[in-house]
Amino acid sequence: MTDNKITLAYGSGGKLTHDLINNIFLKHFSNDVLLQGNDAAEFELPVGRIAFTTDSFVVSPIFFKGGDIGKLAVCGTVNDLAASGAKPLYLSCGFILEEGLPIEELERIAASMGETATKCGVKIVTGDTKVVQKGAADKIFINTAGIGIITEGIQISGSKAVPGDKVIITGNIGEHGCSILVEREKLNLVSKIESDCAPLNKVVEDVLEVTKEVHVLRDPTRGGLATTLNEIAAQSNVGIKLFEDKIPISDEVRGICELLGLDPLYMANEGKMIIICPEIAVAAIMKALKSNQLSKNSAVIGEVFEAPAKRVMIKTVTGGSRIVDMLVGDQLPRIC
Amino acid sequence: MTDNKITLAYGSGGKLTHDLINNIFLKHFSNDVLLQGNDAAEFELPVGRIAFTTDSFVVSPIFFKGGDIGKLAVCGTVNDLAASGAKPLYLSCGFILEEGLPIEELERIAASMGETATKCGVKIVTGDTKVVQKGAADKIFINTAGIGIITEGIQISGSKAVPGDKVIITGNIGEHGCSILVEREKLNLVSKIESDCAPLNKVVEDVLEVTKEVHVLRDPTRGGLATTLNEIAAQSNVGIKLFEDKIPISDEVRGICELLGLDPLYMANEGKMIIICPEIAVAAIMKALKSNQLSKNSAVIGEVFEAPAKRVMIKTVTGGSRIVDMLVGDQLPRIC
Repeated sequence: MTDNKITLAYGSGGKLTHDLINNIFLKHFSNDVLLQGNDAAEFELPVGRIAFTTDSFVVSPIFFKGGDIGKLAVCGTVNDLAASGAKPLYLSCGFILEEGLPIEELERIAASMGETATKCGVKIVTGDTKVVQKGAADKIFINTAGIGIITEGIQISGSKAVPGDKVIITGNIGEHGCSILVEREKLNLVSKIESDCAPLNKVVEDVLEVTKEVHVLRDPTRGGLATTLNEIAAQSNVGIKLFEDKIPISDEVRGICELLGLDPLYMANEGKMIIICPEIAVAAIMKALKSNQLSKNSAVIGEVFEAPAKRVMIKTVTGGSRIVDMLVGDQLPRIC
Repeated sequence: MTDNKITLAYGSGGKLTHDLINNIFLKHFSNDVLLQGNDAAEFELPVGRIAFTTDSFVVSPIFFKGGDIGKLAVCGTVNDLAASGAKPLYLSCGFILEEGLPIEELERIAASMGETATKCGVKIVTGDTKVVQKGAADKIFINTAGIGIITEGIQISGSKAVPGDKVIITGNIGEHGCSILVEREKLNLVSKIESDCAPLNKVVEDVLEVTKEVHVLRDPTRGGLATTLNEIAAQSNVGIKLFEDKIPISDEVRGICELLGLDPLYMANEGKMIIICPEIAVAAIMKALKSNQLSKNSAVIGEVFEAPAKRVMIKTVTGGSRIVDMLVGDQLPRIC
């Protein structure tokens, strides 16, 4: 590659597109399926229920403490598959590049994607690259779609929470949202906050190995814990009560949120899972979670009730109780 | 939806994102799998080899004669699946929207996607929507990924062309590329050219019903017929010779290309398939193609040779012979 910036010709489908594929994507994503070189990847799947999901990533900045848009794009889709109780297997990857993007940055991102995919045990098997004129996109957008096989014998869905269930979060909340905010506000010199961006398929696998008694799994990304719990309460037609003093949150995140007048319940997470399960399964699940580095700060933070249905309430530290609504408006655009 | 333009809040993951999903996407894509409402769609697949592919669409303008970015996004992925000999079954769909996009335009695009999906017999089962600030994207970008099941007993790949094979194109070339060009150059008042944007899964199905003797299928989109044949020649390590006088092309496309100094061999197609097969299968395939409205102008346009390997040559109308290289540079950005 003689040039050091992406030009429109890299998206033409012609010679330079092929150079990009050969010199960057095949290098960092290399696997037997991708190397088939056809427009569609071909493979066989084990027998079972399939999970299929997609996410586009438009995070700004594209590099941040704890990750980058590439790592996020792999983790995001892996985590959505894990949240359906599936073992993630194959990813697709679509790039939209802005003319002028340094090729070195694209390669760093591709390397990060390849590394994360290897860590997750998934293969990036098919892809696509488009280039738009300078000013028609912001640096790089990535879409990943993913296929997984759902573990036999489990029935996990946002609609399966029932009264009496306990609500677990697998660690400190708000770290991804805060880390992006800190980068944007140029507070990064004074803050140690890192994005929690991480693949959670092993965490989920560990849990499902000790029990099949899991009703809901969902990763509270955009909109944070509050929005995701509201989704679940609506889907399951139940009420959820949170105990504020049980919600794990670092001093740094609490401090930044107080400083900027933001509520950590609405801050995005990219390495946390909500687990809703019957009380009888809590001990075994918590033991499994505590033994995994990515979920060692797990905590039981709430409970499911019959009423008020479709509502999330929080019991505050001071003893009061208030409604926690779904996010209205946009607390922080382009968080993922 | 009280507002008539997309705001950043529609991408927050919160209330307005849910409104968009409920009022537009569920309305136009509605099917049993999508209605599960989880982050990943769940379904079972028939036994067989899986095809999996993805494409992002950044075409400008987003509405054009013969289609729009939504129809293109469904057809593009359906056609990539069909080109692997697969029956397309499920699609994912990721939107990146620019703040300020009229919601009415988004709905027209979603309606077009839903209609095209129904026509193809595929279900849009999972999706994602992101919104970026005004100026950080151009109106709307769409990614689709797709899953299909490969017809039993066939082995189709860009690497399977062998000397003696014939090259078929399923109709007039260059119509999508020309139609976009005409829109951009505001020549649309004087031209009747329409994009050929169409789903080809039924065309491929018809062909595979009459014979399994198909070696290569590929749709010549970006980079056109010339670039796609170069890809195949390289993958199969063969030479391909085209006969210029056999290549079907409308007078309008020829005229526009002459006027603007462009070569129709490099103009994008979005509703055409290249079929490479042994001579013995040609008659049956051509008969099947001629009886389908979408491929009634099919023609045998070339032949596969051992040498010169990895080269595409064309025998011109005047009797000469020249090399047809892969597209270098970018004839027309944001064609799809």
